This record gives sequence, structure tokens and C-alpha cells, in this order.
Amino acid sequence: MSDYRVRGFKASVTAAGIKKRGGLDLALIFSDREASAAGVFTGNKVKAAPVLVSQENLRRGRARAIVANSGNANACTGDAGLLSARYTVEAVAKELGISTEEVLVASTGVIGAPLNTDVIGKALPELVKGLSPEAVPRVVEAIMTTDSFPKLSLFEGEAGGKPYKVVGMAKGAGMIMPDMATMLCFIITDIALDPTRLQEALVWGVERTFNRISVDGDMSTNDTVFVLANGACGNGGLSPEEFQRFKTGLTEVMDELSTMVVRDGEGATKLVRIAIKGAATSADALTAARTIANSALVKTAFYGSDPNWGRIMAALGRSGVRMRGDAVSIWVDDVKIVEKGMGRGAEPEAEAAARMKGKEFSVTVDLHEGEFEDHITTCDLTHEYVTINADYRT
Amino acid sequence: MSDYRVRGFKASVTAAGIKKRGGLDLALIFSDREASAAGVFTGNKVKAAPVLVSQENLRRGRARAIVANSGNANACTGDAGLLSARYTVEAVAKELGISTEEVLVASTGVIGAPLNTDVIGKALPELVKGLSPEAVPRVVEAIMTTDSFPKLSLFEGEAGGKPYKVVGMAKGAGMIMPDMATMLCFIITDIALDPTRLQEALVWGVERTFNRISVDGDMSTNDTVFVLANGACGNGGLSPEEFQRFKTGLTEVMDELSTMVVRDGEGATKLVRIAIKGAATSADALTAARTIANSALVKTAFYGSDPNWGRIMAALGRSGVRMRGDAVSIWVDDVKIVEKGMGRGAEPEAEAAARMKGKEFSVTVDLHEGEFEDHITTCDLTHEYVTINADYRT
Repeated sequence: MSDYRVRGFKASVTAAGIKKRGGLDLALIFSDREASAAGVFTGNKVKAAPVLVSQENLRRGRARAIVANSGNANACTGDAGLLSARYTVEAVAKELGISTEEVLVASTGVIGAPLNTDVIGKALPELVKGLSPEAVPRVVEAIMTTDSFPKLSLFEGEAGGKPYKVVGMAKGAGMIMPDMATMLCFIITDIALDPTRLQEALVWGVERTFNRISVDGDMSTNDTVFVLANGACGNGGLSPEEFQRFKTGLTEVMDELSTMVVRDGEGATKLVRIAIKGAATSADALTAARTIANSALVKTAFYGSDPNWGRIMAALGRSGVRMRGDAVSIWVDDVKIVEKGMGRGAEPEAEAAARMKGKEFSVTVDLHEGEFEDHITTCDLTHEYVTINADYRT
Repeated sequence: MSDYRVRGFKASVTAAGIKKRGGLDLALIFSDREASAAGVFTGNKVKAAPVLVSQENLRRGRARAIVANSGNANACTGDAGLLSARYTVEAVAKELGISTEEVLVASTGVIGAPLNTDVIGKALPELVKGLSPEAVPRVVEAIMTTDSFPKLSLFEGEAGGKPYKVVGMAKGAGMIMPDMATMLCFIITDIALDPTRLQEALVWGVERTFNRISVDGDMSTNDTVFVLANGACGNGGLSPEEFQRFKTGLTEVMDELSTMVVRDGEGATKLVRIAIKGAATSADALTAARTIANSALVKTAFYGSDPNWGRIMAALGRSGVRMRGDAVSIWVDDVKIVEKGMGRGAEPEAEAAARMKGKEFSVTVDLHEGEFEDHITTCDLTHEYVTINADYRT
């Protein structure tokens, strides 16, 4: 068992009654001292109220608390939704005895329904009373919607001779797609770091992790990654090497979490890494990977363990990237199934099909157009995905 | 029963043995005189061999025969595939006693498998012997893959005092998406019209019909629409009004066929027209409609008869079009469920859900950004879609 406690941080969760079916739906993370704060948000033009409020509060680069609810996204809720998010932030600040601007807020769940702030207000005193260092890993339980398992990740480093931790908590499942994937991810660390470099490290890591996954090509209105660094480990400044190590560790945490998000994609049974090589431009490499990763025909073929490379070729052909049909090579894991745009026959396909029966495999495409490469981690499209999403609100 | 015979045209179908499971898989359409010919092809950069060969043969704007097979797309088959397509064209020309350039060819089915030209060669004498005016409607049976019903449409007009017909045959089902949708559509008419105006009328109609549908967002390597006009009705030139009427009639035929293609989308249970109004640009209108039509979350909500407008808002927000979340209105049929970006409550949603239980409904979005509008006809995403596409090749 990993120890997810982080010096200076406490957490608390409760069943406030926001989720129709009951269960944990409200979480609080609290730093006993001021912390540097950074955030990355959805690129969707329709932004949920908590995203707008958190963006405001993050301007100072400082925060001490994150309050998050599941069961209601507080998105497309107009001015009333903004008031609800602000009320939540104010009520939390008051209960904790800190300033409103030190509270970040996030929501996930159904879009377009008014958020019941009465139940949140009523739950807050107990929630604050329940704050404890041990409850950190329980935060993920309170922000789950259609997730089937909690997503936690831990990195341990050392700076200025002091050991520090980076603990990440995430929820995902559906509506997962760049330019940001996890609907919610909260990261806490006891390293000391100024807000500017914290934001820099976060953006660097998100670009390589959460922005490289896709479940269904849809992008949420609520996607949020927060990181709080409270300095409780007692390091002084960071050497360039130490900063680099922190950035890498932070990215490792987000890599583990974002991979978990795909593995737990709604209805997903397989994790597939789509890698593009030999693209003419870096944009082409990413576009090609995303087009394949989001093709319904490719994803159902993954589900059926069918190395149906014709669908991959068709997806490449419509992606708009520079390519020649007769130059493409395709592998499943290390099994080459396509060379110069043509199938290599029944034997490698049978071997590829066998690999695809596993829970994880890769598809690599070499376009032979240039030197650029990129990748997207995705999952299959299954009966269960349809079941979950045809029934979500009922 | 409509009479699909068209003066001067004969057709024939056979089970040549291209389809693994047997059944009709080879069709021939033949005009007893030279005809004007026009075509529109897939925008996919990966083009099947028959597309390349037909593009060559269409340069003259004249053709007398169309040969088409199902069971094999002859795509991603390299030089051997080109040879197979050319062999097919030559064999047909020889058997019919016409020139090679007068034969157009189309294929549909699995990508990447070599086309067995032996069985085609062997089947041709009988196929030609079987040519009859009555077999025209049977062509669709021979080009079906996962289609569940044959797609035929008839328009009857008059030019220069002479009655003429336009008969269209199509197959569709999966991998349906602009810039071209039906995998194969053949149209024959006994009107007399020069190739340039025939091509103009075809492109005009395709843009309004086949390029306005989407089943799963994937675009085939084989999409082809051919039209042959053999002049057997005996009209002289066409007045501007008569040309306009022909163009409209041709478009009506393609509209009926393209709608059938969506209604018969793989696993589809519902036909949904996505209409965008008030877009800032015409490109925005089309992009917004397509993004909604291709969202897996929106399509599964259609399947579940769930007026989950939050998913529509989220799709609009990530589509890149100019929009403000608090300006959007959304209707299901004539039931307004969203105003100024917010839900109008349980009552209209219940009414919308009732409409969505039907087999056909519309979703209209007013962005309130400008004067442009467009639409896409699409279908729901169902368990059956996943079943069909996870099992297609097995």
C-alpha cells in the first residue's frame, strides 16, 4: 500500500446528497499553509461555472483549498450556476477561515441541471470537521461518476536534501479528449516552488499526458487539472536539476493517471497506444494519431481483436495529413502487418490478432514522409460504452 | 411498384464467388448507345484501384457500361489491384464489344484483400448474356454489403416534349461521411445532355445530398457516384428551365438515396436531421452540424431517446465555431429545450424525449451569431453498430 499522505495537507469526503443515487459526492482538500497553485482547463468554448470561478481565483497563483463535487457539472447553468460556484467557494472559505480567493472549485456530472447549494452548505461543517491527512486517497471516491476504479498516483523525490511527495488524484471515464482529457485531476505536493514554475511544469506535463489521450473524441466543459505545492517538505530553492526532476515526476504522476483514465474509458476493454512516425510535420503526426484514435470503425475493430488495417488506412486518408497510400507501414506491437500500403498476408495478421486479444497493445504507423512523431493513448469502442451513454441520465 | 426500366439500358447480376459467404456480388449496367458520363469520387487520399481507373476513363465524359462488385473493395492492393481493376474493365469491354474507355468500374467490401479476377472473368459471359432492362433494380442487390435493404429511387420528367426517367441505385451502411457518403451510387437516365452539364448537375446535387450525411464519421476509400445519360428519350437540347428541372430531379433522387443510406446506417434505429441556424459563416454552420452529428456521446443519447442537450453544447464548444454558450437555442423537432444556453426544464425535456422515441426527428441549433445555416442527416450509435463492426471480417 502506498502512503498517500502529504505533509501539510488534509482531505475530507462526504455524501452530501448531490448524486441522485446517493454515495460520496463532495470532497475537500486543504493545505494548512498557503500554497503555490497552478491549473489547466478545458479548451471547450462552453466552460462550466466552476472553471470560470477557478480561473479567476488562480490569477494570484496561490490557493489553500480545493472543493469538488460529483453528480452535477454545474455547466450550462447560466448566471445561477456562477452564483452557485461562488457560493460554494465562499462557504468553504468561511468554514475554513481563509479568504475566498484561496479556494478552487471543480464539478463533474450531468450538464445543465442546477447545482443544489443547500445540500453543499449543510454538508460543509461536517466535511471540514472530518479533514485528516489519511483521507487524501478518498478524494477520488467522491469525484467518481462512471469511473469503475479510483485513480491515484504517487511520486517521491528529494529537493535540497528533503524528501517530498507528489500525489495525484483523477477521475475520467467519458467525454475524454484533448485538448485536455481527465475531467478532474488534483495534484498535491509538499515541495516549495513559485507559482510561475509550477504552472510551467504543469503545462509541460499536461501536454505530454492528458493531451495525448482520447476515449471518445468528446471534450468536456469541465476538464480541470489543479496542482497545489505547499512547501511543507522544507526545501529551499530548487536547483535546475531538482526542478527538472520535479517536472518529470509530476509528469510521471499525470502519465499514470491519464493512462488509468483511458484504461477506465467508458466500456473500454483494451488500452491501445497509437504511435505515428515519419510524419511530414509535428501537426501531421498528432492529427494522424488522433484521427485513428477517434475512428469509430477502428475502435470497434480493436474491440473485435481484428487487425483491420484497411480502416486505419482509410482514417489516415481522410485525416488531411500528407501521406501516400503506397508508402505506409503499420505494426501491431512488433508485428508488421502493412508494408508499402499493402497487407503482408494472413500469417502476420493472425499474429497481430493474437496480440490484440490482450488488454494492451500498440499500433504504430510509419508514414515515411518526414521525421516527426507523436502518439495518442486510446481504448476500444464497445457495447458497454453504448449502454453507459444511452442510459446515463435515466 | 415503380418501373425502374430506362430506355436503352440493360443490367445483369450474378453470384461470381467474390463474397466469401456467397450471394450476388457482381453487377453490370450497359447502355445500348454511347452515353454522357459523370462521376464524383471519395475525397480520401487513399483511393481504391477502381476509383483511379474510373477517374481515368471518365476524362472523355463518355461511357456505356458500369461493372461493380461487392465482397472486395480492391483498395490498398497496390499495383496488383490496379491490374485487377484494369483487367476487369478490359474483360467487360471485350465481352460487350465496346472500347475499354467506355467501361467504369466500382468495388465495395473488405479493404486490402486481393481481388479474385479469375472468378470475375469466368462470370462475365453469363453476366452479359443475362443483360435485360428488367434487371436494373437488381443491381443494388449485388452491391450490398452490410446494407439491410436495397436503395432505389426514381424521378420522371419531360424534356422537349419527351418523357425521361432518372433511376438511382445505391449502397451504403458504414464508413459513411462526407466529403462523400454512399460507398456506391449509380444513376442512369435516358435524357440527352452533354457531359459538362451532366457533371455540373451531379456535383451540385452531391453537395446537397451525399455530402450532407454522416453515419460514423469515417470516409471510404471507394466512394463513387456515377451517372450515365444516354439520350434514348429523344429530347433535343434542353431549355434552361428543363436543365434546372433535370438537376432538381437528379438531386431528388440522390436525396432519397442518401437519406436511405443514413436510415440504413450500420445498426441505426433513428434518422436525425441536425440543422444549424444563425452561424457566423457558412463554414461554421457545416462544422457545427458535423461535429454534433459525429459525436459519439450525442449519438448514443439519440439511441437512448435522451434529450441530453449538454452533450450538444459540449460538442458545439469544441467544434471551433464562433459561439457563446449563453446565446444558444436548441430544439428537438418543434420543442424548444434550450434557451440562452440553459435548459428550459423538465416539461419540454419530457416532450422532447417523447419525440426522440420516434424513428425520425430533428435537432435544430440556433447559434445567434449570424445568418448562415446548414444541416447534416445522421443516425444514432447503437449496440448493433458495435456488433456489426467488431465482427465484420470474421
